[in-house]
Amino acid sequence: MIKGFPSTMNDDWQLNVNKLIDYAGKTHGDSQVVSYRILQGGKTHRLNYRTVSSRVSAVSAQLKALGIKPGDRIAVLGWNDHRYFELYFAISGIGAVMLQLNLRLNPDEVTYILDHSKARALFVDDSLLNLAETLSSKHKFDFVVVMSDGKVDTTNQKLGVVYSYEDFVESGSKQEFQWEDIDEKSAATACYTSGTTGLPKGVYYSHRSLILHTWSIAQASGMNVNDTLLQIVPLFHANGWGIHMAAAMSGSKVVFPGRYTPESLTELLLQEKVTVTVGVPTILSGMAQALQKKGISPDLSNLRIISGGSEPPLALMKTWMGYGAKFVHAYGATETTPLATVNHPKMGSMSGLSDDVLMDYKRKQGYSTFGVDLKLVGPDGKEVSHDGKTAGEIWLRGPWIIRKYHEDKRTEEQCTPEGWWRSGDVGTVDQFGYLKIMDRIKDVIKSGGEWISSVDLENFLVGHPAILEAAVVGIPHPKWDERPLAFIVLRKDYSGDEREKLKGELKDFLSKKFVKWQVPDDFLFVGEIPKTSVGKIAKRLLRDQYSDFYTKSGSKSAV
Amino acid sequence: MIKGFPSTMNDDWQLNVNKLIDYAGKTHGDSQVVSYRILQGGKTHRLNYRTVSSRVSAVSAQLKALGIKPGDRIAVLGWNDHRYFELYFAISGIGAVMLQLNLRLNPDEVTYILDHSKARALFVDDSLLNLAETLSSKHKFDFVVVMSDGKVDTTNQKLGVVYSYEDFVESGSKQEFQWEDIDEKSAATACYTSGTTGLPKGVYYSHRSLILHTWSIAQASGMNVNDTLLQIVPLFHANGWGIHMAAAMSGSKVVFPGRYTPESLTELLLQEKVTVTVGVPTILSGMAQALQKKGISPDLSNLRIISGGSEPPLALMKTWMGYGAKFVHAYGATETTPLATVNHPKMGSMSGLSDDVLMDYKRKQGYSTFGVDLKLVGPDGKEVSHDGKTAGEIWLRGPWIIRKYHEDKRTEEQCTPEGWWRSGDVGTVDQFGYLKIMDRIKDVIKSGGEWISSVDLENFLVGHPAILEAAVVGIPHPKWDERPLAFIVLRKDYSGDEREKLKGELKDFLSKKFVKWQVPDDFLFVGEIPKTSVGKIAKRLLRDQYSDFYTKSGSKSAV
Repeated sequence: MIKGFPSTMNDDWQLNVNKLIDYAGKTHGDSQVVSYRILQGGKTHRLNYRTVSSRVSAVSAQLKALGIKPGDRIAVLGWNDHRYFELYFAISGIGAVMLQLNLRLNPDEVTYILDHSKARALFVDDSLLNLAETLSSKHKFDFVVVMSDGKVDTTNQKLGVVYSYEDFVESGSKQEFQWEDIDEKSAATACYTSGTTGLPKGVYYSHRSLILHTWSIAQASGMNVNDTLLQIVPLFHANGWGIHMAAAMSGSKVVFPGRYTPESLTELLLQEKVTVTVGVPTILSGMAQALQKKGISPDLSNLRIISGGSEPPLALMKTWMGYGAKFVHAYGATETTPLATVNHPKMGSMSGLSDDVLMDYKRKQGYSTFGVDLKLVGPDGKEVSHDGKTAGEIWLRGPWIIRKYHEDKRTEEQCTPEGWWRSGDVGTVDQFGYLKIMDRIKDVIKSGGEWISSVDLENFLVGHPAILEAAVVGIPHPKWDERPLAFIVLRKDYSGDEREKLKGELKDFLSKKFVKWQVPDDFLFVGEIPKTSVGKIAKRLLRDQYSDFYTKSGSKSAV
Repeated sequence: MIKGFPSTMNDDWQLNVNKLIDYAGKTHGDSQVVSYRILQGGKTHRLNYRTVSSRVSAVSAQLKALGIKPGDRIAVLGWNDHRYFELYFAISGIGAVMLQLNLRLNPDEVTYILDHSKARALFVDDSLLNLAETLSSKHKFDFVVVMSDGKVDTTNQKLGVVYSYEDFVESGSKQEFQWEDIDEKSAATACYTSGTTGLPKGVYYSHRSLILHTWSIAQASGMNVNDTLLQIVPLFHANGWGIHMAAAMSGSKVVFPGRYTPESLTELLLQEKVTVTVGVPTILSGMAQALQKKGISPDLSNLRIISGGSEPPLALMKTWMGYGAKFVHAYGATETTPLATVNHPKMGSMSGLSDDVLMDYKRKQGYSTFGVDLKLVGPDGKEVSHDGKTAGEIWLRGPWIIRKYHEDKRTEEQCTPEGWWRSGDVGTVDQFGYLKIMDRIKDVIKSGGEWISSVDLENFLVGHPAILEAAVVGIPHPKWDERPLAFIVLRKDYSGDEREKLKGELKDFLSKKFVKWQVPDDFLFVGEIPKTSVGKIAKRLLRDQYSDFYTKSGSKSAV
C-alpha cells in the first residue's frame, strides 16, 4: 500500500453508528419517529429524534451500568418499532454488538446463532415471549429485557433475570453518560445468513462499513430531510437494508409499521404521506392488492419504492408506476450490508429506447454504487466482458462487503484472499453497466465451457401454451461436461398426445430466444416437479435422480 | 478509544480519490464530460467518463515514468476544464498531492505557496503561460506541463523542461499501469487559504476526507445519475467545493465552462440543460442579469443552485426562484473541504411560516450535514445554547475538517487539541438547527461579556433614509470592555444639519431591532469610510485610530 504525504485533516474522527442518532437528535430534533404497535397489542408512538436520541443514551448508560462491555454480543428479537430502532444505536454505542435475530427461523437455528455468537443478553418484544422462553431454555442469557408498552412481568422464571425496557430507559436517564469514540473497525451489528442449505453463517458489520453504506444508500435512494420513510423490511434482515440509518443521517421522518398486514401497510402509506419505502416483491404485491380491494387509485407521485430480494414481476412494477410511484430495483445480500447495485434508468443513454425495452432494463438489478467493485468471473476463472450476453459469477468487493464469515470454514469457499466475495449468483452486465442476474451458480448449467441459465429456459418455457410448469437442470454429459434436461408439467387441457412431436415443437419454440447449444437435449413429461420446503424447485434432487440420464441413455447431444 | 469485537467486513478497502473516476469510467462510461475552452482560445470537448478515466490512467502512468513519487507535490494552474478535472485523479492516483493554485493571487503569494509546499512540477493552462514564466523564475520546477488544445512550444526557456499534456496522455497510454491502494490518510490535494491578513495557510486534504466529503455533498445536493452539473466554482477554490467529485460518484454529466463571462455561463446553463450548479452570489447575480438583458424568462424548474461564500441577497434568491429554480444556501471554508452546513427548508417543521419568514430562514447558512460536529462557543469559552439568539463562535469538527495547518504556527490559534477548528465566524443556531452567521469574530464587539454583531448594526443602519454608508466597530471601554462606535456617511441629499438631534433619531431607529446595550454609544459623521484593498471596511484601521475614543472622551456609556 502506498504511503503518501501527511494530511492536515481530522482523519482520526471515527465513523461510529451512534453518531447518526446523536446528529439527528441535535440537528433534526423535531423530525418524527412514528411507531405502530397495534397488531402486536401495543399502541402508536409519535416520538421525535430529540426524544429518541436521549432514550438511546439512557439505554446505553443502563447497559454499561449492568456490566455490558465493549465487544459483548446482545441479541434482539422484535418487530420493526422505535425500540428496535433505538437498539441499533444504544447497543453499538457502547462498543457492544447488536445481534439481529430472524424471528421466522426455527428455534434450533436461532439457538445455533446465539451459541455461535455467544450472546450475553436478549432484548425481546412482548409479543414474542414464547419464543424467548424456548430460547432461554437452550441458551443461557445474563438477562432478558422485555420491550412492551404495558407492564412487564419481571418474575418470569422461564426467562431468568428480566428487566423492562421502559424501566431501562428511566434508570439509564439518571446515569451520567457520554459517548466515547469507538474504533470504527469494531463490529456494531451482526446478522446470520439463512441459506437454504447448511447452518447459518455470521456476518459482523463494522461501524465503518455501516456508516459508509448509509451514505451510499442515502444517495441511491435520494433520501432528504423532507422524506418520510416507511420501514417495511424487517430490522433483522441485513440491517433492515440500512435505510433507517439513512433516515437518521438525513433527518427524515421514519415510520415503523410494527407487526403488519398488507392492509395495515397501505393504510400507513397513505396516512403518513410516505415518500420512500423498501420491501420485497411479495409484500409490495400484497400492498398493491390491498389498494385494489379498497377500490382506490391514490396519487403516489411523491413515492419512491425500492424493491429487492428477487426480480420484481413486470405487472407489479406497472401497477405501482400506474399510481405515479417510482419503482427502483436494487440488489444485495446479507454479506453486502446489503446495497450492492441500484437501478435508476439513465435517461441520457436510454432516451431512444421503447417503453417495453425500458421496462426490461428497469427489471435488471442495476449498476453498482460507488464503493462496490463488481466483476463477472466465467467458468474458467477469468473475468468476462460486460457485453450484456456473457455470463459470469458476480464477485463483489468493497468497504461494506464481507472479507470472511465469523469463525466459519466456509469462508474459503466464498471469500478470496484479494477481498472478493463470491456471491453465488450468475449474471451479465450490459453496455449501460446494468447487472442482470440469471441464476444461482449451483443451478447454472456448465456446457462446453459456457454457462446456460436454467432460470431463463424455465421462464421462457412456461410461456408456451401447452406448459404449466417447467424445470431445467444440468445433467453430466460425457462430451460437454453438462447438458440441460427439461422437466415439463403439461396443462390439464393440453390435448396433443404425440410427445415426440411436442419435443420438436418445444425445441423450435426455444430457438426463438436461445442459440442451439443452449436448448435442452431432451424433455421429460412429468406429473409434478419436486419442491423444497420453501417452495423452490428441488433441483439438487432432480440432478441426483437423473445423474446418469445422458450417459446411460446414450442420447446424442444436439450440439 | 473503545476497541470492540472484530468485524468480518473489508475494513481495509481504502477510500481513494482515483477510485471515483475508475468507478465512473466502468459503470457510467457513457455519461458526458463537456469542456468549453472557447474564451481561453481553445475548443469545446465532448468526452465521456470512459475516455476521461483512461486519460487519467495515462497521465498517472506518465507521471510515474517521469519519476514522480508518492507524497510529491504537483501544482496546477488552470481554468475549469476536463484536464484540470483529470488531474484531481491522475496526480492523487499515484499517491502524489495536487496543489490547487489560485490564479487570482499575486505572484509573490503564489511563490510563497510553491516554496512552502515544495512543489516539484507544474501543470499550466496555455492561457496562463505568462504567470507560469514569472513563477518559474522564482521557484524551481523539475518540469512544466502545458495544457493546450494546440501545439505546445516545448523549447520555452523561461519554463525550463516543458511537456505537452496531450503528449503526456499519448505516452502514458502506452505504459503498463494499474492503480495501487493508497493509505487513505495520505494527502490527495492541497489548497492554501487566502485570508485578508497574513501569509496563506496550507490545508492538505486526505483521500479519506475527500471521499467522505463527496458522499456528504452528493447527499446534500441530491446528485444522481440523471443530473447535469455546471461547475462554476473554480477547481482551485477548496476542491471546487467537491461537487465535481460527487458528479463522478453519481455518474452525472458534468460541464466545465473554462474561462467564462456571466453571458457564457447562462448560455451553457440553457444549452446543456443543467440541473445542478454551484457558485458565489456575485456570479449568480451576473448570470441573472445576463438572462434579464436577453429578455428571456426560462423555465428552470429542474435546476438546483447551491450558493456559498457569502449570504445571498434576498432579491437574487427571488429572481432565480422566479424562474422555478431551487436556491440552496450552503456554508463552508477551505478548512472544511468545504461543505459544513446546507440549507434545505424543513417543510415538516416550517409549514406554518409565512413566505417572508421562510425566506429569512432560507438565507441562513443552514444545518450541519452528518459528519460535521458544530458548536457555538461564547465569549467565556463555554458552549452557548441553540436558541436562535445567543451568539457564539462557530467551532467545527469532523472527518473533513482540519486538525492543523501544514507546518504553520498559526495552528495553535485556530485548532484545539480535541480536534475542533475555530472558524472565526460568530453566529447563532435556531430551534430548527439553522446556523446564521453574524460577523467575523475579530469584528464582533465584546461588551459586558456579551457579543454584539457589527454587521447586523451596519445592515440595519443603511436602511435609514439619511444614511449612505455605515461602519460599526468595538472601541475599548473602561467599564464594558468594548462599546460600539458608529461611523456614518450621510446621503448627499440629506438636508438636516443638527447632528445631535440625528444621533437621538438613530438611537430610536436602532431600538426597533436592538436592545439598549447593543446600540452604539456614539455616532461619528464622516466624509468616507476607509476600505481595504478588496473593498471591505478597514475595521482594524478604524479601531486603531479611535482606540481611545471612549477613554479620552470620558463619554458615558448608554448602558
